[in-house]
Amino acid sequence: MRETLRLKSAPQTAEDEIKFLLDEVKRGTLDAAGAVKALDLSRLNEILHPRINAPGATCNEVSRAEGLPKWTGGISGAPGAAAGRVYFSADALLEAKALARQRGEDTRCILVLPAAFAGDVKAIKAAAGVLTAQGGYAAHASVVARQYGTVSLVAPELSITDKTAVLGGLSFSEGDPITLDVPGFGIPSVYQGIAEISEPDITGSALLDFITLAKGLIKNFQIRVNAETPEDAEKALSLGAEGIGLCRTEHMFFKPERINPFRELILSESGEARNKALEKLREMQCDDFYRIFKIMAGKHVTIRLLDAPLHEFMPRSDADLASYMDHISASKETALSGDEVLARIETLREYNPMLGRRGCRIAVSYPEIYAMQVRAIVEAVHKMHDEKLDVQPEIMVPLVMNAAELKLIAYGKRAEGASYAGIAGVEEFLNCPIGAMIELPAAALGAGDIARYAQFFSFGTNDLTQTTLGLSRDDAAGFLPAYSHYDLLEGNPFSVLDERVKELIALAVDRGRLTRPDLVCGLCGEQGADPAAIRFCIDTGINYVSCSPYAVPAAIVAAAQILAEKK
Amino acid sequence: MRETLRLKSAPQTAEDEIKFLLDEVKRGTLDAAGAVKALDLSRLNEILHPRINAPGATCNEVSRAEGLPKWTGGISGAPGAAAGRVYFSADALLEAKALARQRGEDTRCILVLPAAFAGDVKAIKAAAGVLTAQGGYAAHASVVARQYGTVSLVAPELSITDKTAVLGGLSFSEGDPITLDVPGFGIPSVYQGIAEISEPDITGSALLDFITLAKGLIKNFQIRVNAETPEDAEKALSLGAEGIGLCRTEHMFFKPERINPFRELILSESGEARNKALEKLREMQCDDFYRIFKIMAGKHVTIRLLDAPLHEFMPRSDADLASYMDHISASKETALSGDEVLARIETLREYNPMLGRRGCRIAVSYPEIYAMQVRAIVEAVHKMHDEKLDVQPEIMVPLVMNAAELKLIAYGKRAEGASYAGIAGVEEFLNCPIGAMIELPAAALGAGDIARYAQFFSFGTNDLTQTTLGLSRDDAAGFLPAYSHYDLLEGNPFSVLDERVKELIALAVDRGRLTRPDLVCGLCGEQGADPAAIRFCIDTGINYVSCSPYAVPAAIVAAAQILAEKK
Repeated sequence: MRETLRLKSAPQTAEDEIKFLLDEVKRGTLDAAGAVKALDLSRLNEILHPRINAPGATCNEVSRAEGLPKWTGGISGAPGAAAGRVYFSADALLEAKALARQRGEDTRCILVLPAAFAGDVKAIKAAAGVLTAQGGYAAHASVVARQYGTVSLVAPELSITDKTAVLGGLSFSEGDPITLDVPGFGIPSVYQGIAEISEPDITGSALLDFITLAKGLIKNFQIRVNAETPEDAEKALSLGAEGIGLCRTEHMFFKPERINPFRELILSESGEARNKALEKLREMQCDDFYRIFKIMAGKHVTIRLLDAPLHEFMPRSDADLASYMDHISASKETALSGDEVLARIETLREYNPMLGRRGCRIAVSYPEIYAMQVRAIVEAVHKMHDEKLDVQPEIMVPLVMNAAELKLIAYGKRAEGASYAGIAGVEEFLNCPIGAMIELPAAALGAGDIARYAQFFSFGTNDLTQTTLGLSRDDAAGFLPAYSHYDLLEGNPFSVLDERVKELIALAVDRGRLTRPDLVCGLCGEQGADPAAIRFCIDTGINYVSCSPYAVPAAIVAAAQILAEKK
Repeated sequence: MRETLRLKSAPQTAEDEIKFLLDEVKRGTLDAAGAVKALDLSRLNEILHPRINAPGATCNEVSRAEGLPKWTGGISGAPGAAAGRVYFSADALLEAKALARQRGEDTRCILVLPAAFAGDVKAIKAAAGVLTAQGGYAAHASVVARQYGTVSLVAPELSITDKTAVLGGLSFSEGDPITLDVPGFGIPSVYQGIAEISEPDITGSALLDFITLAKGLIKNFQIRVNAETPEDAEKALSLGAEGIGLCRTEHMFFKPERINPFRELILSESGEARNKALEKLREMQCDDFYRIFKIMAGKHVTIRLLDAPLHEFMPRSDADLASYMDHISASKETALSGDEVLARIETLREYNPMLGRRGCRIAVSYPEIYAMQVRAIVEAVHKMHDEKLDVQPEIMVPLVMNAAELKLIAYGKRAEGASYAGIAGVEEFLNCPIGAMIELPAAALGAGDIARYAQFFSFGTNDLTQTTLGLSRDDAAGFLPAYSHYDLLEGNPFSVLDERVKELIALAVDRGRLTRPDLVCGLCGEQGADPAAIRFCIDTGINYVSCSPYAVPAAIVAAAQILAEKK
């Protein structure tokens, strides 16, 4: 069918092809299933991501990429194309961008770093692109970049010394023009100079109608979005998302106006100081949740309670530390001395933070943070109810290791009868399901027990891949190229689900549903947008996947193609 | 039976009890099984570890512990009792010990650190005891400590500032006297001052006869030892070990005269420089292996090829770095500038080294190191054969993730026909089995495929526990106390095998033997000495456990008790 259509029409652009398919449906020469099956998924990238050398684009001051010195290679972190000036630190980039804005100059910047950390989130969001030597598709920088539509390229060959970045024959100093071209499929390129970029604009695009067509074919399966800002929620909704499958609350604390109250909480010496800091954060979180609920009114919003290790919130660079120390001495937020603060930061450091005190392990020791988050959810729900708006919150506990842990956190009570972590009692009160992230092999194997305390499972396949394969996504970029050279892995396990990870997921679904036949299961890792992963989910009886906003359309079309095929 | 014996005799010491049991066997009133079953395993600690306030001991200059200020708590890292003077760094301790030796003073030192690293191995060996704030039973310091018979105590309450350690009401400056009492079972204590310590001396002890008696009851199961020095091999042999189940070759490189050639290898820029460094290391390794083979003549020696991440070999402290930089500029071992060396060290750092480039991942990128180790094994075997001595080497590949990886490393050939990592061809030549460490959930699940390329499996339960539970043994001490308070884990998973880890092991044994019915399986993690783990191994069809030298006698008696029960 597809071959015939192609021969008949030979459409030029992806938008044209989609229009053609919609027209065929309108004319009745093709049914919805036929049209959806005929679309080549990879062509959606042309519409959804910025591109260089877009057909029909005209060149002004900028060059067509062909004329620029070029380096080819690296690993795609977040697809698209981006041009701008090179900056070697988050601070330098943010400063330069603010200055360019004041002066009315081109504000596009590219962040170039050996590796990106949580503290770089703001700059990754502000940047047009990120180029790092370390990392990979599932590394922090890449995940954040995809979230914000920032282009991300990981090039292990990149070396940065004395404010000069060298990549093959190319060399960049601070402020130099650079262009990153990271296709969704194929090999990325880096150009010396600014190439022309076409930005995606899907308002009025035929894609939106095509998504509606595809969604009509999907039964008993959902595409949700990973989103924690109203902007992302809105974007995802317009791209067809059925709800939020993963709202990562720690990202809400990384905002500059939030990070210091959160640090205050971590450093607080007394219950009083802790409560003061928690109170500030609760008000902010309540507002966050309310705004997201309102956008997603009537749709599921799965809120993952704090997952990140506490040290991720503390200053990392010397500059960040110095400015935080200034803040402390000016605000007198803590009674601790500078040395005591440094010592506290030091004790939070871990050898293997990925396997350290994070997820619900934080709540076992410090249940106050979860209790604050749950109160914020309750208040936001009340505000929605006051406005007669429907809201469907779900509370998700991250990094569950075993049933005892989840039982304590979700249903535990203190001696005086109060809820252990603020959750017990709330699930009935709000009619809000409580679920567990299944992201450790022990949790997958113990799913039968865990399902006694979880109304839903969400498979966090980034972490489950890390622990199952013993592979840190932030460190793997150094050796995965050799693995791919010798064909030792079937694709990058952080973009394509590994067979052993799939075995654990399937086993967890089975064991979980033996205990609780109506257990809802979702998958919210980075692999969720991969058509093969969607096929696996549908075959395994998983109810939804959740992925980045820009990945939602391809995931919807993929699910529709798979379900249409099965009919 | 046991109750009756106790009532009849009421022996005072463990040695007396063992003598009594041996006498009963001699007199024929008790058979071997009865005698072995009657021994309380925990009493072996009394004989095998130093103790304070040993019954019958006399006091000279030192005090009986009762008179000393005391703190109680912490986690046992390596049992025993140790007294000495406090030092806050490996260098300070080694210097002080050398000085005390010159002066004919008491050379006993206690290393007190926030946490111990690989670079502290030499000091841990030289110390009588190690007291750290971070770590746990399975942390590096504890594992190394048990290996060398050094007492290790982890006290999260310990704070070290300005060369003063504070633990509860006790405070220690550099050089202050301290005593650690870490019982095999029960709560540890720390004393301010030097308490009397009785050292274990088992020469001529009835324990040795009892071990022989117990070994007579063990069929189709072995207790091997984790050892990489001739001293440990000899000690373990005298304590009844049937061979070496785990010879960790990286420990051989941490020796001060080895670490610089190894660093030379890591920093080498040219093939020539690399070969020069490898040549130095090969000669040293050959000698290591030969000496161990000779002690273990006729017994299995399982050699694990390099496992540790490369950055563990680089300087960590500023002092270590400075002295290394001096060494480089004097020796001219590398053509790199100081800044280049620093940059190289920086690129070796990882966010989660436990999940990074280690184990056979190093060999996929740099097969030369394994090739050098295998050549050293071959040469050592030849030396043994020249002396008409029997030798049973086994080559073990660590951190195997999947079959493709092991196939490349164990059987892979280069285009020109040479072995990829020096192993291919050797297994037939030496009649030497090649095996895989199963220490990742993916490897356990993929055991059926891996067994196509492995003649034996060795379950590395330290790492398998870390990845299955997503729990770093070096970071867990901070939150495991809360887990134990709320009863969220059945014991410390690094000393007692977790149920999910056991499920993965049992599944791997089954899948492995479906592919290769005669697959030999061993368990070489820290949990190997635990009687419950030995019972699990016997029930699961595992052929041997391998544990620290001092744990061998208890493991032998435990295995004999379990097998005697089954009859």
